[in-house]
Amino acid sequence: MRRAGMERGEEGRGDNVASRIVMEAGCYRINQLDDPSRGRVFSGIQPTGVPHLGNYLGALESWVSLQGSYDSVLYSIVDLHAITQPQDPRQLRQNTLDMAASLLACGINPDRCVLFQQSQVSEHTELSWILGCLTSMPRLRHLPQWKMKSKQKNKGSVGLFTYPVLQAADILLYKATHVPVGEDQVQHLELAQDLARIFNNHYGELFPEPRALLSSMRKVKSLRDPTSKMSKSDPQKLATISLTDSPDDIGFKIRRAVTDFTSEVTYDPETRPGVSNLVSIHSAVSGLRVDEVVQQARGVDTGRYKQVVAEAVIQRLQPIRQEILRLRDDRAHLENILEHGAQKARELASPVLKEVRQRVGFH
Amino acid sequence: MRRAGMERGEEGRGDNVASRIVMEAGCYRINQLDDPSRGRVFSGIQPTGVPHLGNYLGALESWVSLQGSYDSVLYSIVDLHAITQPQDPRQLRQNTLDMAASLLACGINPDRCVLFQQSQVSEHTELSWILGCLTSMPRLRHLPQWKMKSKQKNKGSVGLFTYPVLQAADILLYKATHVPVGEDQVQHLELAQDLARIFNNHYGELFPEPRALLSSMRKVKSLRDPTSKMSKSDPQKLATISLTDSPDDIGFKIRRAVTDFTSEVTYDPETRPGVSNLVSIHSAVSGLRVDEVVQQARGVDTGRYKQVVAEAVIQRLQPIRQEILRLRDDRAHLENILEHGAQKARELASPVLKEVRQRVGFH
Repeated sequence: MRRAGMERGEEGRGDNVASRIVMEAGCYRINQLDDPSRGRVFSGIQPTGVPHLGNYLGALESWVSLQGSYDSVLYSIVDLHAITQPQDPRQLRQNTLDMAASLLACGINPDRCVLFQQSQVSEHTELSWILGCLTSMPRLRHLPQWKMKSKQKNKGSVGLFTYPVLQAADILLYKATHVPVGEDQVQHLELAQDLARIFNNHYGELFPEPRALLSSMRKVKSLRDPTSKMSKSDPQKLATISLTDSPDDIGFKIRRAVTDFTSEVTYDPETRPGVSNLVSIHSAVSGLRVDEVVQQARGVDTGRYKQVVAEAVIQRLQPIRQEILRLRDDRAHLENILEHGAQKARELASPVLKEVRQRVGFH
Repeated sequence: MRRAGMERGEEGRGDNVASRIVMEAGCYRINQLDDPSRGRVFSGIQPTGVPHLGNYLGALESWVSLQGSYDSVLYSIVDLHAITQPQDPRQLRQNTLDMAASLLACGINPDRCVLFQQSQVSEHTELSWILGCLTSMPRLRHLPQWKMKSKQKNKGSVGLFTYPVLQAADILLYKATHVPVGEDQVQHLELAQDLARIFNNHYGELFPEPRALLSSMRKVKSLRDPTSKMSKSDPQKLATISLTDSPDDIGFKIRRAVTDFTSEVTYDPETRPGVSNLVSIHSAVSGLRVDEVVQQARGVDTGRYKQVVAEAVIQRLQPIRQEILRLRDDRAHLENILEHGAQKARELASPVLKEVRQRVGFH
């Protein structure tokens, strides 16, 4: 009944839901690892171009730290997933390179992990096909992403419907043991776990059941509507801070961030989502605890506090921004890094898929 | 409104339906080709082991003759399709080799066509993923195979649901222009045609729209129930003649074939399906026209006529049977032929997929 727990997980109760998942699904918070040296981490990010502050604080920061905690770490720019929604080809290519530049700028180090572009490793779709033959249609229909995205667009492609199977293949192809996921992805990881079990039952033990690494980082909210997540697709341009925003832009967006009519700085996400979002961001970029941040802001009104937050964000993002801008201009370097990553990924994927093929009866 | 025509196509009216399709869908009968030398034929067959007489007369015979009519011909043993239904891995492997042996024994010549195993060319699933992102869910739900097979099994896998997309990829991957299909596959070919158009519209002209080559050969019926097709999965062992059946087995099965209480030999599939099926088979294996066969059988009762048919079938199948038995014992030779075929298929598929990837925006 793990799923039931998630479905009840409304906005703002994330932490309760998360702890329930940790207990019920055998997941691990990032700071509660069991013998990480033996594990392999896999995670993917869509090529949406330069990430925003929410991506960075919500996922990429922990990606960087995982590089030091596990022997083997793979990060994939999942362009095969991106095309489940319509894409302009040139933009997609540019977004892929921008994402690569951004990941490197954030601290993803190709010497400490395998950074690669999913479409360059053909084994992903091959394993996905095989796993799709082990997945029942009703199992997929109940996954929340399909329900949500297909409704939003009023129709969906076969790719959009089947992409959780490709996600499972992404993970199992490398026999990954740990997968950093947001709470909204827990059910997809459960499909990967199920498919590992189903394959092992059919064809003999091969895949470890991958476990979720739930990041404990709070979700960064929109600056214009602090009850919803910060999102790249937000039509309000002031809602989202991009990692390449200039200091002026960042200052302007945070000055215009929606707060309330109380001037005091407190942390209470339920009743004061706007200012609490700023406190969260401030805490995350400064490395201070939330209570420390609030303590420091005693006697400061929210108008003045916004300047403090803006300065902290600018300070944190400045080196990242400059590195993204520098790397973006060196397309050959980025392509070289991705090609090298794809080679390493293929070296890992190829023997696993060979074994899968053998067991399925292909040779 | 092509589809409507097919949906009305009940058993026994195949010929009318077929001519309608030829006109409406711009298909071609095998003997009505337009400049075949410029075309490329692709067709696939599932690895079901040694084929039966129905497979041979319904499809494989025309596969053999197409080798001489087109410059480029590809035949694939489609094991990725086979696993959309549960398979025993060892049996699947054996069935694949048996199918290869049978195709060679029937006259498929690896020097005149590319004979290969689908799973050995990774480009099939890659293109299938990309095409799946261009296929809407409702488009697939209306295809007859899913409706039928998922109902039979009371549930279906994602692979079973999406396999018409993989079929489209099989065809488009080689830019095939002509596809020999049975009437029950015409709607699947229409999906491939649609996907060629959709891709070309999105990403610029790349794929020719493949055309159906409808074999004019009548369907061979079950010997035990001449109103249904001869089928490998028929639970009645006497219903189906395998290409490796011994002369004694063939004689026995044809002697026991269901006919009726009229002793005269006539051809009237509607009212006398049993004896008409024997006439059809006799005509097909002897190369005589149906009216010639009936003429020759004047004055012969059905009991005696069965011996005549059995002898004709045995004469036709004997060399094929012996060649299958010989090839089956030479596993290394079969594997070598399939590996060589896969190499040639990859050489054709690789530049096409590279172009597809470029256009989609992957590099």
